[in-house]
Amino acid sequence: CSNPNRMPQPIEPSEHEERRAKLRQTLRLYRVQGWIVTALPNVRYLTGFTGSSGILLLSADRALLFTDPRYQTQATQECDCDVRVVKGPLLVEVSRWIQRLGLKTLAFEQNRISYDEYVHLKELGIGLRLKAIGGVIESLRAIKSSAEIATIQASVQLNSAALEQALRHFKSTMTEVDMAAEIEYCMRRLGADGTAFETIVASGERTALPHARPTDHPIRTDELLLIDMGASVAGYASDMTRTFAVGKLDAKTRRMYRAVLESQLAAVQAVRPGVTCSSVDGAARKVLRGFGMDKLFIHSTGHGLGLEIHERPRIGRKETTMLEPGMVITIEPGVYQEGVCGVRIEDTIAVTSSGCQVLTPSAKELCCL
Amino acid sequence: CSNPNRMPQPIEPSEHEERRAKLRQTLRLYRVQGWIVTALPNVRYLTGFTGSSGILLLSADRALLFTDPRYQTQATQECDCDVRVVKGPLLVEVSRWIQRLGLKTLAFEQNRISYDEYVHLKELGIGLRLKAIGGVIESLRAIKSSAEIATIQASVQLNSAALEQALRHFKSTMTEVDMAAEIEYCMRRLGADGTAFETIVASGERTALPHARPTDHPIRTDELLLIDMGASVAGYASDMTRTFAVGKLDAKTRRMYRAVLESQLAAVQAVRPGVTCSSVDGAARKVLRGFGMDKLFIHSTGHGLGLEIHERPRIGRKETTMLEPGMVITIEPGVYQEGVCGVRIEDTIAVTSSGCQVLTPSAKELCCL
Repeated sequence: CSNPNRMPQPIEPSEHEERRAKLRQTLRLYRVQGWIVTALPNVRYLTGFTGSSGILLLSADRALLFTDPRYQTQATQECDCDVRVVKGPLLVEVSRWIQRLGLKTLAFEQNRISYDEYVHLKELGIGLRLKAIGGVIESLRAIKSSAEIATIQASVQLNSAALEQALRHFKSTMTEVDMAAEIEYCMRRLGADGTAFETIVASGERTALPHARPTDHPIRTDELLLIDMGASVAGYASDMTRTFAVGKLDAKTRRMYRAVLESQLAAVQAVRPGVTCSSVDGAARKVLRGFGMDKLFIHSTGHGLGLEIHERPRIGRKETTMLEPGMVITIEPGVYQEGVCGVRIEDTIAVTSSGCQVLTPSAKELCCL
Repeated sequence: CSNPNRMPQPIEPSEHEERRAKLRQTLRLYRVQGWIVTALPNVRYLTGFTGSSGILLLSADRALLFTDPRYQTQATQECDCDVRVVKGPLLVEVSRWIQRLGLKTLAFEQNRISYDEYVHLKELGIGLRLKAIGGVIESLRAIKSSAEIATIQASVQLNSAALEQALRHFKSTMTEVDMAAEIEYCMRRLGADGTAFETIVASGERTALPHARPTDHPIRTDELLLIDMGASVAGYASDMTRTFAVGKLDAKTRRMYRAVLESQLAAVQAVRPGVTCSSVDGAARKVLRGFGMDKLFIHSTGHGLGLEIHERPRIGRKETTMLEPGMVITIEPGVYQEGVCGVRIEDTIAVTSSGCQVLTPSAKELCCL
């Protein structure tokens, strides 16, 4: 496997500092003295820390990362803020620092903390007022910096390169699992940290399952093969689906493919700043309605992605969020006929100031393997 | 890559029913009329459902799985209980069913539900009493059935076979990432669903980081190479660490290896029903103390594993839990000298009625690559 086209642009420590500065601007707005950040992707976003155990305490003038001894060295290397290594439950030490810093009112992420942790924090912090302000960091994250977009682009290009290389090893007798193994091997060899989600390889009637796990089913000729794959590169996700014809397809299946492709192109066409997510979703559905297939499209049209595979905004039927430059989203309509087959086509797309840029370089015309 | 020695034993639907029956026995004990199960591994344990979105509502006579339209077909295939496919937030439909079934008092998993979901559930269920009874299902899961142990054994054997095969491709010039790619490829080809956790490949002084991510660092001769890897097979995890000598090691490093190996063997020796987890942890620490290295052992000795990579019991310093037949745990002492190197040796072990069985077949004596 050769190297990918583009290298991820490292996120500079100054960018973490800028992000924390932005979050600090919300302190006055929400009338809190600090933030307790418990969602790991948010902790990473604000500090650079990539470990699996960490809490960030952010006040107007302090930024403290709490982690366990396994991450002592790593945290110090990765973070530009103060690191406190804690034996035992992190929240106990966090509470001590809340008191030490004299913080009385803290914002917390009600959607990214367990009920248990919330109760624990309340019990530890006598007199502490906790304000539920979840989603604010996720909203900041929805607008990517140029370094982030460059990294997502590197992830997308690596992902496409991995698919191309894996397809060179395709044989119609191989199983779904074998194909998934080839894909993930190529991703890794090209420099991915790993997969951004469980690779989907589905053939034949299993393509009708939108989230099929690869099985020992052999991939057979004259059937569809659906591959939904994403790499993680420097922490940033990519996401692409392609549906292939293995051998020949009947007219009905070819029509299904055409419907999904036209739907996908129409939705991409609709992506630009100032339009609502629902209108992009509507553009995809409208085309499928013309084919009489809108009832077979049983999920939303797309989602934001970045440090997580599912981020804001959701490109769904009722989403009133407006697209903005810097958002990076997927467009992935699909049609699923239970017991028969399914087709999905998905690209990763950046919203620009004038419209959008399709980051995914892989071809979308029906391709016969 | 050839096939592994052992195939996972499928979990029969009757086993899911037995597990639900066991959980129903807690209803009277905790004076609740039902359970709302939100932790996905617990949902899988009780129903067989493997999707990424699902809630189980269990009462004395009903078992209802709620999921979204993406999993319609899959849920019906996998589950032996009633399946409700829901457009929109699952909790809204769950609440409707709580009212329909006339349930007034429900157990919930306070450690596996977000604060947000808890509040949502409270708001939806007027008059509903929620009792925080988290950890009960996890305690049931700590004791594995024979089918589960057979599946973990299959996972462990596949994991060892994958390491053996990957090592055949080892060259001292390859990078940590290349080695991780080989390992994960072999796992997949041998039939794993994927990895049970992020594969750790660390060389040289990076072995001193207990949770090192593989990097582009070339693996150099006359240094240590630490590999911590786990496969997921039919949903069940394996977990193994081996530390290798690439070329020659100095006497100090060889002594470090000997200390960890003796510590690991002593802890394994201590595993049998009726002893506390802390005493097993103590056995590992005692040996390291003899070498003057106990301060360099900065994590606990092990953990249970199964549908999740970290399960009950924790083999830690203060854990008073008693080992019981059917528990499956790791034993993984390690010694880490910052800026120099680290050694960890880890096996997966089943507690039997008379003692224990080391499931991991890979050799532990210092091996030079």
